[in-house]
Amino acid sequence: MNASEFRRRGKEMVDYVANYMEGIEGRQVYPDVEPGYLRPLIPAAAPQEPDTFEDIINDVEKIIMPGVTHWHSPYFFAYFPTASSYPAMLADMLCGAIGCIGFSWAASPACTELETVMMDWLGKMLELPKAFLNEKAGEGGGVIQGSASEATLVALLAARTKVIHRLQAASPELTQAAIMEKLVAYSSDQAHSSVERAGLIGGVKLKAIPSDGNFAMRASALQEALERDKAAGLIPFFMVATLGTTTCCSFDNLLEVGPICNKEDIWLHVDAAYAGSAFICPEFRHLLNGVEFADSFNFNPHKWLLVNFDCSAMWVKKRTDLTGAFRLDPTYLKHSHQDSGLITDYRHWQIPLGRRFRSLKMWFVFRMYGVKGLQAYIRKHVQLSHEFESLVRQDPRFEICVEVILGLVCFRLKGSNKVNEALLQRINSAKKIHLVPCHLRDKFVLRFAICSRTVESAHVQRAWEHIKELAADVLRAERE
Amino acid sequence: MNASEFRRRGKEMVDYVANYMEGIEGRQVYPDVEPGYLRPLIPAAAPQEPDTFEDIINDVEKIIMPGVTHWHSPYFFAYFPTASSYPAMLADMLCGAIGCIGFSWAASPACTELETVMMDWLGKMLELPKAFLNEKAGEGGGVIQGSASEATLVALLAARTKVIHRLQAASPELTQAAIMEKLVAYSSDQAHSSVERAGLIGGVKLKAIPSDGNFAMRASALQEALERDKAAGLIPFFMVATLGTTTCCSFDNLLEVGPICNKEDIWLHVDAAYAGSAFICPEFRHLLNGVEFADSFNFNPHKWLLVNFDCSAMWVKKRTDLTGAFRLDPTYLKHSHQDSGLITDYRHWQIPLGRRFRSLKMWFVFRMYGVKGLQAYIRKHVQLSHEFESLVRQDPRFEICVEVILGLVCFRLKGSNKVNEALLQRINSAKKIHLVPCHLRDKFVLRFAICSRTVESAHVQRAWEHIKELAADVLRAERE
Repeated sequence: MNASEFRRRGKEMVDYVANYMEGIEGRQVYPDVEPGYLRPLIPAAAPQEPDTFEDIINDVEKIIMPGVTHWHSPYFFAYFPTASSYPAMLADMLCGAIGCIGFSWAASPACTELETVMMDWLGKMLELPKAFLNEKAGEGGGVIQGSASEATLVALLAARTKVIHRLQAASPELTQAAIMEKLVAYSSDQAHSSVERAGLIGGVKLKAIPSDGNFAMRASALQEALERDKAAGLIPFFMVATLGTTTCCSFDNLLEVGPICNKEDIWLHVDAAYAGSAFICPEFRHLLNGVEFADSFNFNPHKWLLVNFDCSAMWVKKRTDLTGAFRLDPTYLKHSHQDSGLITDYRHWQIPLGRRFRSLKMWFVFRMYGVKGLQAYIRKHVQLSHEFESLVRQDPRFEICVEVILGLVCFRLKGSNKVNEALLQRINSAKKIHLVPCHLRDKFVLRFAICSRTVESAHVQRAWEHIKELAADVLRAERE
Repeated sequence: MNASEFRRRGKEMVDYVANYMEGIEGRQVYPDVEPGYLRPLIPAAAPQEPDTFEDIINDVEKIIMPGVTHWHSPYFFAYFPTASSYPAMLADMLCGAIGCIGFSWAASPACTELETVMMDWLGKMLELPKAFLNEKAGEGGGVIQGSASEATLVALLAARTKVIHRLQAASPELTQAAIMEKLVAYSSDQAHSSVERAGLIGGVKLKAIPSDGNFAMRASALQEALERDKAAGLIPFFMVATLGTTTCCSFDNLLEVGPICNKEDIWLHVDAAYAGSAFICPEFRHLLNGVEFADSFNFNPHKWLLVNFDCSAMWVKKRTDLTGAFRLDPTYLKHSHQDSGLITDYRHWQIPLGRRFRSLKMWFVFRMYGVKGLQAYIRKHVQLSHEFESLVRQDPRFEICVEVILGLVCFRLKGSNKVNEALLQRINSAKKIHLVPCHLRDKFVLRFAICSRTVESAHVQRAWEHIKELAADVLRAERE
């Protein structure tokens, strides 16, 4: 395919994309296919001779679309939102064309420098403490990671290196293995599974601190765990506090646990993967209070800030903590400015070597929405979740399980887990809307997350009418 | 921005991209900017009100392009190629629109199933042993990782888990830390820096096996290291063999080291990040002989197979080795088919949780080029590198440092490192072409890698004329 055919096919694809987005409401949100549906539909091997573009685009409708879960349908209320916006798609086209691999400053200066400045822009939108910003040539700064999982892992590895160096400086006879055996990391029992995974990968113990009645980590439970573990000879070194948990959007009490971490020399990583985007609104900024105690902070603009996946924003107060953990400099990656102190080589900040020009997406989105447009978007979602909440509260058969703070409503039928499992099963079999559940303590709970960029009050109302009907069926079936 | 504005702006962006690709030869391959160039050119904070698309696209030319290293210029001969093709760009547009996060089968069945089948297609193109394929419901299968670094890390972590389980099954009193202290991984001294990094992250020793005169790992050196380490009480558990090293595109001797790894119960990971794409040509397939001894194999279609970054193809013989190392199943990620044995949840195969619909790029590229088109592309690059090699060989002032097998030529002026450093410095200051160096033993060497999709003989000839002129200047300056 040459440039002139790309001009033609690219424009056809732009129309296909626009048609898809405009017509998405008409597509069933969750597909009908069964496991293994796709393989029989396509050849067993790649063609020797080229297929035409027409063949392929026809196959997209015939083969791909029937198996797609439509995350951007206004009837998708599952998991958490994943971002989608036209400005981000435009930026991604440009990113694909430039196609640079930004592992070092020299590999593409614009790629590195725009990222640094965009992370400052975003940090300022959130009113992050200045220590996390790069602009005044301080010790902090931001980086785009691929996912919150990677941010947690990178923070844990940096903390691990730091504590090992500190202990070995004091007692040179200690081996790395002897130290690692005693290291212990913490999170609340509501933290995301990726935190446990980071512990597994890093080869350190991870302990879950029991959360309180609001599913928040509090000082007393943390203090108790620390005393017990230190008495057993363990070395607390790392803590993940979550703002907006995946289960129920609860908030760990940063103002309580932050000072404890600082006092105990425990690296505090704050994971606000979902909720972070809301902190650009002054009325939600208080939820971030206590971030000043953190060593690293992360949230996902690719969830709720209209920057398409992947774009996970991570800041650290001391960038040498990250680069010190990973730095390796083979000759083929060296460049003349490397040791000048003036540049950033982002490869030292992350797990992979390669990286795309992802800051273009932030730049396009921030400029084409403006801060006010982004704030309006967040506010609309929060308003819709409260609308759903009030519908649920008006129906005495249902209960709200956790205070609704942002765009997630956790609710259930008053009654057994069995009846709620049956309700969810009916909802997801009907495929008019799509939800996923969670467990809160011993309760099976339905999660209703405001997800789509185009969801409106009418969709929420229709979803609730549908849920009520299915609930009536379930309750009737139960009585019979 | 609504769909109708996206139709307009998307088509303008298609033209911008096509213009960029068509005109890239006219742009200076390496930018003139100095560190810190970008920040003064843009505001210190995001705008409150929206900017227009015109403003932004104008700023792309004014602010971004002056700082871009043009990886797809036909005068870019640095690092290794990074893929760029129009079919991949079209697929990426579709991927951005669908915007699903494919962490589980249910999260988007098409995303998971197309990936599984595309990895089989690609495996067949390479004539991988059937044990690596998924199609006959065997134990193996493929997955798209973000980078070769991640593939190496995932393999190392899986191997670490496996050996710990095996040793603990035999001696339940052994702690994980006691085992990890003794674990040792290996690669050749020519392996990529990401291998050393995987060892650091995984918290295990990594030892470099001295390569032979052709920069290849051989049986004798490996055997020697194993004997020495076992005698010292260490536990060899993991080996990375490289096919096509980054320094000089040398090939470890798989047929020698593979059987040793199998005999010693060492997980063998084969990293062919760059060279792997060439194995789709029958005349280069012999370079992959010995892969039958491997537990995992990886190469980057995003380097040399026209599938834009990121798309790193990894296969394992036993997928439970990966999933066993990482599996965590919180309620909010559970789905009804999960334990059916019929589906794949790729989140258990990788470091991050989220993942894009990357197999669309493979599908578009494989179909629109056909296997023959892809083979022709590889052959053209190899032919161009031999053309450059023969130009170098005709000039008695220069020497070829390593046998040229694929698209990389390692060469230097006969003489001191200093004179070669001066030559490289002149080349990269002139900015007509772009190269990076490597060290081979104590020698400073220039790497000439055939990179761009559009590079032709004329570009290679012009590059060589330019290098010769600068070499004459350097040699003259040295004599004076």
